[in-house]
Amino acid sequence: MRIILIYDVTEGKCEKIRKECNKYLNWIQNSVFEGTITNAKLLELTNSLKKKINLETDSIIIFKINNESWINKEIIGNEKNEISTFI
Amino acid sequence: MRIILIYDVTEGKCEKIRKECNKYLNWIQNSVFEGTITNAKLLELTNSLKKKINLETDSIIIFKINNESWINKEIIGNEKNEISTFI
Repeated sequence: MRIILIYDVTEGKCEKIRKECNKYLNWIQNSVFEGTITNAKLLELTNSLKKKINLETDSIIIFKINNESWINKEIIGNEKNEISTFI
Repeated sequence: MRIILIYDVTEGKCEKIRKECNKYLNWIQNSVFEGTITNAKLLELTNSLKKKINLETDSIIIFKINNESWINKEIIGNEKNEISTFI
C-alpha cells in the first residue's frame, strides 16, 4: 500500500514524530512523508504515533492508496527530499 | 481527479499560495489542500502557482489520483479543517 502521511503537531513533538515516521517512510517535504508499507507495519506506526501526540490538539492525516500505479506525483519547484539524509 | 497539494514556500509567500489554492481546493491541514478538480482547472492552478513561487527554493507537490474511490483517508487526532473558514 502506498501512503502519504502529513503531520501538524506542536513544535516540541516534531522531532519525535519525524524520527518515528522515518523508520517506515521517506521524508519528502516539510511535515510530509511518503512510502510503501504493509498493513501490519502501518498499524505499528499509527499505534506508536498515537502514543506520542496529543489527540485533541495534534493532527496526523494518512492517505492510503492500494495500488502504486493509481497515484501520480508532480513537483513544481524544488524537490526537497534530496536533503532527507540530514534527519 | 482527486488531488492532494502540499506546499513548502518561504514565509512571505504562504498567504498568496493559500489564497490561490483555496479558490480550487479545500484546506485540510497546515500547508495541505485536497480536492476534486478537472485537468483544465488544475492546469490553471499550477500555472498560477508557478508565477507566484521561486522555482529554485520553493516546492509544491501535487499527488493525483484519477478515481475518488482509490483513496482512503485516516485522521489521527484533531481534524483541523473545521477552522478552514478563517482563511
